Amino acid sequence: MIETEIISKTKPKLKDPICVIGLPGIGNIGRIAVGYAITQLKAKKFADLYSPYFYPFVMIHNDQIHILRDEFFFYKGKKRDLIFLIGDSQTYDPKGHYEIVGKILEFLESLGCKEVITVGGFSTGKVSKKPKVYGVVTNKKRIKELSKHGISFEAGTKIGTIVGAAGLLSGFAEIRGIRGTVLLGETVGFPIITDPTAAEAVLLVLEKMLGIDIDLAKLEEKVKAMQDFIKKLEQIQTQAAEQLTKTKPGKEDLKYIG
Amino acid sequence: MIETEIISKTKPKLKDPICVIGLPGIGNIGRIAVGYAITQLKAKKFADLYSPYFYPFVMIHNDQIHILRDEFFFYKGKKRDLIFLIGDSQTYDPKGHYEIVGKILEFLESLGCKEVITVGGFSTGKVSKKPKVYGVVTNKKRIKELSKHGISFEAGTKIGTIVGAAGLLSGFAEIRGIRGTVLLGETVGFPIITDPTAAEAVLLVLEKMLGIDIDLAKLEEKVKAMQDFIKKLEQIQTQAAEQLTKTKPGKEDLKYIG
Amino acid sequence: MIETEIISKTKPKLKDPICVIGLPGIGNIGRIAVGYAITQLKAKKFADLYSPYFYPFVMIHNDQIHILRDEFFFYKGKKRDLIFLIGDSQTYDPKGHYEIVGKILEFLESLGCKEVITVGGFSTGKVSKKPKVYGVVTNKKRIKELSKHGISFEAGTKIGTIVGAAGLLSGFAEIRGIRGTVLLGETVGFPIITDPTAAEAVLLVLEKMLGIDIDLAKLEEKVKAMQDFIKKLEQIQTQAAEQLTKTKPGKEDLKYIG
Amino acid sequence: MIETEIISKTKPKLKDPICVIGLPGIGNIGRIAVGYAITQLKAKKFADLYSPYFYPFVMIHNDQIHILRDEFFFYKGKKRDLIFLIGDSQTYDPKGHYEIVGKILEFLESLGCKEVITVGGFSTGKVSKKPKVYGVVTNKKRIKELSKHGISFEAGTKIGTIVGAAGLLSGFAEIRGIRGTVLLGETVGFPIITDPTAAEAVLLVLEKMLGIDIDLAKLEEKVKAMQDFIKKLEQIQTQAAEQLTKTKPGKEDLKYIG
Repeated sequence: MIETEIISKTKPKLKDPICVIGLPGIGNIGRIAVGYAITQLKAKKFADLYSPYFYPFVMIHNDQIHILRDEFFFYKGKKRDLIFLIGDSQTYDPKGHYEIVGKILEFLESLGCKEVITVGGFSTGKVSKKPKVYGVVTNKKRIKELSKHGISFEAGTKIGTIVGAAGLLSGFAEIRGIRGTVLLGETVGFPIITDPTAAEAVLLVLEKMLGIDIDLAKLEEKVKAMQDFIKKLEQIQTQAAEQLTKTKPGKEDLKYIG
Repeated sequence: MIETEIISKTKPKLKDPICVIGLPGIGNIGRIAVGYAITQLKAKKFADLYSPYFYPFVMIHNDQIHILRDEFFFYKGKKRDLIFLIGDSQTYDPKGHYEIVGKILEFLESLGCKEVITVGGFSTGKVSKKPKVYGVVTNKKRIKELSKHGISFEAGTKIGTIVGAAGLLSGFAEIRGIRGTVLLGETVGFPIITDPTAAEAVLLVLEKMLGIDIDLAKLEEKVKAMQDFIKKLEQIQTQAAEQLTKTKPGKEDLKYIG
Repeated sequence: MIETEIISKTKPKLKDPICVIGLPGIGNIGRIAVGYAITQLKAKKFADLYSPYFYPFVMIHNDQIHILRDEFFFYKGKKRDLIFLIGDSQTYDPKGHYEIVGKILEFLESLGCKEVITVGGFSTGKVSKKPKVYGVVTNKKRIKELSKHGISFEAGTKIGTIVGAAGLLSGFAEIRGIRGTVLLGETVGFPIITDPTAAEAVLLVLEKMLGIDIDLAKLEEKVKAMQDFIKKLEQIQTQAAEQLTKTKPGKEDLKYIG
Repeated sequence: MIETEIISKTKPKLKDPICVIGLPGIGNIGRIAVGYAITQLKAKKFADLYSPYFYPFVMIHNDQIHILRDEFFFYKGKKRDLIFLIGDSQTYDPKGHYEIVGKILEFLESLGCKEVITVGGFSTGKVSKKPKVYGVVTNKKRIKELSKHGISFEAGTKIGTIVGAAGLLSGFAEIRGIRGTVLLGETVGFPIITDPTAAEAVLLVLEKMLGIDIDLAKLEEKVKAMQDFIKKLEQIQTQAAEQLTKTKPGKEDLKYIG
């Protein structure tokens, strides 16, 4: 595989779909919020994204090989349909971010998608019982409209920059004529692996934005289940990254297994 | 996005255009000189360059997402038209310089451009009240002709090398049959973020070379306004670069937001 | 060479072939087990894989230049034919793993191959007189069927991850509709360069899985012969990697010869 | 520029040409031996190779911009014509070596070239008044034939590996049906920038192999002239490499000029 590839088993016909994206990041808020929505809404998997820019290892999960990937799901809504995207991994390579973002947007365009919401975390360094949800837009005319959903727009002064795919996805969406919004759940930051409270805050906003109901009763329980996989994944990636920076052949690739 | 892309909203018809290029660099002389000329001449934006070789983050600027980019402007002159190119970022990757330079020259060729002037700074380590403007050419036959504009051509002995896009742009221009000149404003060097005096010296040379008038009265004031954005951008890039060299997944991409 | 290339002198017609792959790795178990099978079965070489992701040096072996490569062999079996793949090198680059794996699977598909077995080592840190052979599959429905060949399937709890080509080959095989199994010979791990006992254990399993007979009497003797080449190769790669991480021109490429 | 490119002004018709290649390397033996042959034979320049894998800077040489490049020359011989290739730079990137080698061989093939001789140095660590010339071949059947030209073939035991383009060029030549020989002039090694004695030894061998006469009287004088350019180039590359490994934006590209 030379370029990032999206392999879709079926190409669903979707009604004016909005795509909600939760990739790994601080507090894994995007990943667990979107992952929970997928479970509760029983959204259907229809495509996988693989990338040469992901780490070159596989995990053994549930007794079989698991290749790092991003996964697309769809959900048939009342007025509009939804696409969900969650991922195992962000790339370690700056170029990879651009390639992956380009492939995702191209694929979403082919599905008729005109709006993208990416979910992430915003590390404040302090614990908040009622975490805010900050919004960042690609066109500031939309701030007023979005403010009614309980989103805070003081991001400009507080945030300054969004590193990784979440920001690029929304930014490049606009260039293709797709609306882009970033939602950032306020979280304490390191070293929390998953922050269910911030994820809940984001889910409450998403319910309003998307006009859907998600039963939040099982959130904490489900997050615990996801946490194991995420923790394992993060540990392995950290080890892999350390090996890769050393770049010793006969060691790098081989330390564990191979 | 797999390759550097230039997206142009409109393709203006230009009369024998000269392109003046100011990318980030020492003292940000190119960027602020060309940026000021654009403002004063009310040049019109017509294209953006995005590159996977730029850093993988977005800035929040004026309450909305700003993707790192280079920007093309045009100005209708009396005898000849002008194209201006300014940029947020130079790439961190050697290969990226070559790709970006190639894409820029290809685009300029498609606009009928036969001459390129790139503006940069030359760090001397000492403060000069009347900074010189050094010229470097791709064909030394042009030295005599250019000397009358107040450009100093002792570059060969003093300079030796030009790192980054400015030199490659002029060098590869020649290969495509485009005249290439590099103008380097003498500056003290680090840690000045912007050097308006050197930029002014360059602008005075550009006025002569291009046969245009640029009101320099507001230069200092405008430079202050640009400085904030440039400073913010440089800080973030330095942080991003530090994170990238560590290449720790679960840290690298996620430290700030994601 | 810009992409990994497989150059085949002849394209043999093969009957429902299984491919057995032994790339360098811990204890070099895959490489020596598969290498020994090739010698004993007198399998025929028919293709070479070269990659820009291998180290940029050549070895002088048997008085002539030896470029780093992977080599394909075939063997005409009674019921099914066999393809063997052994390699000098794994790549130092994460992207390279993905590219090489993609090229190998594409080539195997073109040969009608529907099953892939990759052989590696699993480092336990302790010496075992009767090393186990662990199996990892891409579809857990196959565990029962494979268990009868003496393969242990406790891998999931013990192993967790497979770094490098072995795991990716099996994982991506499944996506292309090719069965993928990883066999990992239990070995003490570092700093053993070759572990013939673990290789023997793997060969015994392969005999059962493939329905073939391999005379194991000469294993130790042949391993000694292979060991010299492998050792030399590993030393050079380690040196090359150290030079590359320093990235000093005028030193990097030139330290030895050039 | 996304890939390495060879730009040829004219495509000469050549009679069964042999290509002699001198790229930078230890003692710069290849570069100065081949460079001297070009000057003495008054060979004609006909093509340039540029690569995104070279360092991203230009030199100011003879008052104008000099882009790093490899240069092709041809010489009309009595029986066979000659192609010479000399270069400013080897790449800092392992992948770059493979790409550049591939492009060179493809170009040589298009010129009907069936034989390649690459010239380098072999560092022994001691000064020799009568340096040997070691040969390495891609097919050992040719050792006997070549031995008569005063080439020593103990390389296998002494050398072991050739890092960089010289070895890969000969190795991949063979795969394309082109004969490949590496000639390595014995030299003390670091920190000699140019070793004219070893270059002379190589030139004496080349005279026999190619059936040509090269007046060696001016070798030392010419080498002194070349030395300045080579020294400057090496210093800049070392600095550039140091900057690149630090990868600090706002510093990396900008330290000197830009």
